[in-house]
Amino acid sequence: MKYKLMNFAQLSLDLIEAQYALKNSRNEKNSKSILILIGGIELTNKGKSIKKLTELMDPRYLKIRADIPNKISPEKIIWQPYVNNIPKKGEIIIFYGNWYTDLLASTLYGDQKISESEFQKHLNSIHKFEEYLNNHDIDIVKVWFDVSWEKVKGRLSHFDLSKTVQRVPNFSWDNFPMDNWKNKTLYNDIQNVKDRFIDDWHIIDSEVNKERNFQFAQLVLDHLSITPKSIKSRLRYKPAPIHPALTQIQSDTIDQTQYVKAIKKLQHKVAEALRYSSKNVVLVFEGMDAAGKGSSIRRVIKYLDPHEYNIHGISAPEHFEQLHPYLWRFWTKHSNNGAINIFDRSWYGRVLVERVENLISPAEWQNSYEEINQYEKQLSQSNTIVIKFWLAISKDEQLKRFEKRLNTPQKHFKITEEDWRNREKWDKYLQAASDMLKYTDTPTAAWHIIANDNKLVARMQILESILKRLKA
Amino acid sequence: MKYKLMNFAQLSLDLIEAQYALKNSRNEKNSKSILILIGGIELTNKGKSIKKLTELMDPRYLKIRADIPNKISPEKIIWQPYVNNIPKKGEIIIFYGNWYTDLLASTLYGDQKISESEFQKHLNSIHKFEEYLNNHDIDIVKVWFDVSWEKVKGRLSHFDLSKTVQRVPNFSWDNFPMDNWKNKTLYNDIQNVKDRFIDDWHIIDSEVNKERNFQFAQLVLDHLSITPKSIKSRLRYKPAPIHPALTQIQSDTIDQTQYVKAIKKLQHKVAEALRYSSKNVVLVFEGMDAAGKGSSIRRVIKYLDPHEYNIHGISAPEHFEQLHPYLWRFWTKHSNNGAINIFDRSWYGRVLVERVENLISPAEWQNSYEEINQYEKQLSQSNTIVIKFWLAISKDEQLKRFEKRLNTPQKHFKITEEDWRNREKWDKYLQAASDMLKYTDTPTAAWHIIANDNKLVARMQILESILKRLKA
Repeated sequence: MKYKLMNFAQLSLDLIEAQYALKNSRNEKNSKSILILIGGIELTNKGKSIKKLTELMDPRYLKIRADIPNKISPEKIIWQPYVNNIPKKGEIIIFYGNWYTDLLASTLYGDQKISESEFQKHLNSIHKFEEYLNNHDIDIVKVWFDVSWEKVKGRLSHFDLSKTVQRVPNFSWDNFPMDNWKNKTLYNDIQNVKDRFIDDWHIIDSEVNKERNFQFAQLVLDHLSITPKSIKSRLRYKPAPIHPALTQIQSDTIDQTQYVKAIKKLQHKVAEALRYSSKNVVLVFEGMDAAGKGSSIRRVIKYLDPHEYNIHGISAPEHFEQLHPYLWRFWTKHSNNGAINIFDRSWYGRVLVERVENLISPAEWQNSYEEINQYEKQLSQSNTIVIKFWLAISKDEQLKRFEKRLNTPQKHFKITEEDWRNREKWDKYLQAASDMLKYTDTPTAAWHIIANDNKLVARMQILESILKRLKA
Repeated sequence: MKYKLMNFAQLSLDLIEAQYALKNSRNEKNSKSILILIGGIELTNKGKSIKKLTELMDPRYLKIRADIPNKISPEKIIWQPYVNNIPKKGEIIIFYGNWYTDLLASTLYGDQKISESEFQKHLNSIHKFEEYLNNHDIDIVKVWFDVSWEKVKGRLSHFDLSKTVQRVPNFSWDNFPMDNWKNKTLYNDIQNVKDRFIDDWHIIDSEVNKERNFQFAQLVLDHLSITPKSIKSRLRYKPAPIHPALTQIQSDTIDQTQYVKAIKKLQHKVAEALRYSSKNVVLVFEGMDAAGKGSSIRRVIKYLDPHEYNIHGISAPEHFEQLHPYLWRFWTKHSNNGAINIFDRSWYGRVLVERVENLISPAEWQNSYEEINQYEKQLSQSNTIVIKFWLAISKDEQLKRFEKRLNTPQKHFKITEEDWRNREKWDKYLQAASDMLKYTDTPTAAWHIIANDNKLVARMQILESILKRLKA
């Protein structure tokens, strides 16, 4: 590009206008956010381009994160170090450090060698994760600042490495001497690793400062101006037949005395198994209203101490959660290791209530099956056991329980107008549940359908299922 | 209490009903939250009382936190380790570990001896902090489980200390041998420390398990049933005279060439001073619409790198933020040390827009002055410099800037209906600003009133003020 064509003043006006348009659209239908991932060695002066961007834009609404690289490990899901900074709709944020710098730093300076297949597997996970963000209105812009070895040599001579390293903690430099920059080895190493993931990146030629700055800012403007692509269903959805276990509710019975004795023993076993499990555990309870989710959970935690588990009662998302991709509010609940997380309703709300109430489009809920499978696969691959229960009750039994709640003063508050409205949509929920059971019953996260017209038998089955899965 | 009077079944029904009433009231005017702080040695079996409470209540809506004690230090504000778990309206949460266990553990096992005056100072800060929570609809219930030495000896014989310690990380036991429990020294030490802060606690006699459990649950029920007390103004508010600097805007001028040279030099100095400051820095910019807050901030950050600062553009709180005490959303922005936090509008919204728009009662905004002073004092005492600017413009100058924005296509989006509506309330804002300047101009966090009809001079003054404060 010729210098005279680089009109920074006009670019700045356009950027600011686009930035405000983005910000002001956050509650609109076509809103989006922009996440810019930065790559490239420090000697490209990429920092200067980011600095310049803050000058061209309104810096109050341009967030910059510069995280130190995280060592990649199978136990850590890609989003875990970043979950609190994933942009909300209307936001634009730059990640200096990101999942690629994690991969790059771990490959080059990790204490353990990363094999080609591990690298590819991790890269594949990154791509799936990015695809999810992309499909949920986050425009990911990956920008690699590139520079020739000749230029690096030139810049090295008047570049205070020690100072830069302190201020841009993009890499853990501990593992190799600064002198490495003096020959081409380190430069080559970085180039070689980046070549393995660079296919879908924008490359910015960083030889000339002014051109580099302009190109980068222009790229950001281009992305600010793009209308987010609509989600297209990739699933060939075919309604599942109504699952027989949802309508033909088994009603085995158990003798009360026998139950009391057996359940106590089981509860102790489950508590021990959960407490001493080397893996994190996620328990999901879904089912129609009054299906017994709450009382089932009480039986599971009976002999656990209260600080050993978290119970997440999931209802409609808050406004700030709606500004994030759907699964985000669940990601935030898995930030700690060693936990027992129990969900009373869950991310399956996406394909149950949100579908039935037409809160989202068919393409959206149809895509959600695969997204949920991916999410549970991420959890499973990162040292977490996911155990899912659908508590099945008959329509008659629900009516009985509703009436009992109505007629018991102390349970009155447990039943609302909404419960009755949901009951009218019973058949729609049956279809939604059947589809869910068909499309999200995966090897690592299988569904346990528990007939719960008889609560005693159901509780035994739930505890036994947990025990079996934990011992597997 | 006689055993036969302890009707656990009825207590449970009452608790659950009260718990749901609390939960369902979260958006109502009289809503509140309950924060239960637990104290007492493990041998009181307090854990069993908490466990029992989870059985009596709906465990899905009773959160339990068990944090390891934090070493108290002047650089850490009391709320910092707990800020993310402070309950929202409608929530009830139990803190096993809390600011008292921090104080207790630090006094008993800290590596540095805590003097009587340090202890009292810290306790005083705790009380001020709790008062703030109390005045903002958080009912704090402090429960000390007490037990005699005779009982401790008895329980020690069948108590697996090693196991308990692992599971209830309430103290860092590293600094003393387990054997300490075998004589009365440790018991006495804990009793002596707790005697110094126990005045406003509920003491639960923990000799008999069942009584202890009942008393504790009954206490929780009592608090669930209390209507939050209304805030009473403790400030003898008297409207301040309109501050002359708000209406008589000085308009010194500076030669453009001279300005360009001088500002650059100043900006470099400010960047260096901010970057190498051993203290955290908080910059607050307030002023009428179009007073030049944004453009002032741009001048401050000119030679800083984007990752060296955070700019917080403060607008109306989100719904989830409104469920917290007003200052909470600002607390969350100070969780990291070593930061430069720049606020474009701030907590002063409480006594400016929220007052002028009648979003809160006079008692509420009148109390806010002292609350804000306390908050800024907390910041100042924890290694943070707070520098506050009121950018003063004349009403004529505002009109000029509004019109300029209207007539410049690229600035059009910067002006909204709301700006015009606010302008109509100019005099009310003048009064609010004058009161604010009177009541929140403190020795540690003084206001700098900058006449900003002439932006060039104003920018110089802002930079000079920052430099002066950082060098002081």
